[in-house]
Amino acid sequence: MRIASFKAGQTATYGLVTNAGIIDAEKRLKAYPTLKSLLARGSLDELKALQSERPDYALAEIELLPTVPDPDKIFCIGVNYATHLAESGHPTPPHPMIFTRFANSQVGGGQPMIRPLESERFDFEGEMTVIIGKAGRRISREEALAHVAGYACYNDGSIRDWQRHTSQFAPGKNFVGTGAFGPWMVTTDEIPDISKQAITTRLNGVEVQAAPISDLVFDVPALIAYCSTFTELVPGDVIVTGTTGGVGAYRTPPLWMKDGDVVEVEVSGIGVLRNPVKDEVAAAATRAA
Amino acid sequence: MRIASFKAGQTATYGLVTNAGIIDAEKRLKAYPTLKSLLARGSLDELKALQSERPDYALAEIELLPTVPDPDKIFCIGVNYATHLAESGHPTPPHPMIFTRFANSQVGGGQPMIRPLESERFDFEGEMTVIIGKAGRRISREEALAHVAGYACYNDGSIRDWQRHTSQFAPGKNFVGTGAFGPWMVTTDEIPDISKQAITTRLNGVEVQAAPISDLVFDVPALIAYCSTFTELVPGDVIVTGTTGGVGAYRTPPLWMKDGDVVEVEVSGIGVLRNPVKDEVAAAATRAA
Repeated sequence: MRIASFKAGQTATYGLVTNAGIIDAEKRLKAYPTLKSLLARGSLDELKALQSERPDYALAEIELLPTVPDPDKIFCIGVNYATHLAESGHPTPPHPMIFTRFANSQVGGGQPMIRPLESERFDFEGEMTVIIGKAGRRISREEALAHVAGYACYNDGSIRDWQRHTSQFAPGKNFVGTGAFGPWMVTTDEIPDISKQAITTRLNGVEVQAAPISDLVFDVPALIAYCSTFTELVPGDVIVTGTTGGVGAYRTPPLWMKDGDVVEVEVSGIGVLRNPVKDEVAAAATRAA
Repeated sequence: MRIASFKAGQTATYGLVTNAGIIDAEKRLKAYPTLKSLLARGSLDELKALQSERPDYALAEIELLPTVPDPDKIFCIGVNYATHLAESGHPTPPHPMIFTRFANSQVGGGQPMIRPLESERFDFEGEMTVIIGKAGRRISREEALAHVAGYACYNDGSIRDWQRHTSQFAPGKNFVGTGAFGPWMVTTDEIPDISKQAITTRLNGVEVQAAPISDLVFDVPALIAYCSTFTELVPGDVIVTGTTGGVGAYRTPPLWMKDGDVVEVEVSGIGVLRNPVKDEVAAAATRAA
């Protein structure tokens, strides 16, 4: 199943994405007003039972939202591909490097990623993302995949100068509207082995990052085991698994995203997360129009 | 006003703390089921109007919860006192150092702070905490204090070895039950100038940290201005402003909190946040009893 959160008119909802269109789940499953609440009740089967319903909307009619708009936790993993380690000069960390995002830093597929007033250094980071489906603490590597509901694409857009204001990355990773999450999640029954997939990032149609997911330094089971050691994972939690080599900051000259650009993150088996880039002023003007 | 979140029996609620006892706000102000929802509506005046009501509980009858149990964001500030900078060997950062906590890492006053199975290195960090009362983005230093609802004490309990697994602090700052927040917030009308207050941390009655709040490297207006540049602050957001010199990690030998200890963080004008320390196994056994 492909499951998206989206806006139909002014109403935020979620549903099944099929080739014929989108089936609104919220209006059929009143007990679960959001994807997070459905995951919390372990009710993916009820969603699956809607697959033969007549679609409510064409994809072109709706506005995608971040796949989970309201996660309890967003974990981001730093330097988790060898090629990104090499370009950044970081030594291979002995443990996963964890920083966090707030939910209000996210946008959905098609929504503008916002280059803020304060910086020109807006960088792309294509990533594969895990959505947790089952709560747990101290989950073993062996049990880890049973806690995954599905996978999505993520663009962990980064304001590089603010990321380096101090040793801690949070400010540069949390500007409003800088992280794109989507376009939808694909459930694990359709992707039995995420490590066999590959990730590609394109800026204005030109490939800027590409790697097999099997290149992850810490794989999905290792990340789930580590994060669940210090905190309890709950349904809807998001683990953004890290970016590969090719980010703009380490190019000569650096390659920053700018107003009018279109950036795409594709994970095979999932789909393409495509976002226009807008300057904050231009974005505000667009909203006012 | 002193405002606490607490449990009366099995019910989570919040209310006014008076010398005569606690006045339950939730059962009188049904529109605001939580302190965060009351702050979001800017309704501190409705709470104030309850001050002459007859208290519902004695303080000994209730269990304090984290003052805001469900904040949208928890910002923690690293190395923000000269004495802590000196002991840690950090240079003075040119900008506030920001890391984050998840809400499930918090406990209230009197609740055990949990030393997890994975580490002996459980350190105290007494801090003064700001609770946001009014939303805003790019708040100026001059306007900043108008966005503050009140202040509280915080013990930013840290698992030092996990904090240093990589350059990013999140794992060591997010073990479940390691951060204490309370015992209540005191509104700004009673503390017109927080910089005139002082903070003290005591472990088993022995003073281990002490500083005037005026020693903050980045003061409250500076922290609000900085954080609100990259994100929107909303009511209930928490800014934990940093700890002063004297933490256990830099002592010879190091001083770790252990099962049976009692740790107190006192901010003058607010009160004393007092927590027993329990090993995770002992805590689980207590809950089962």
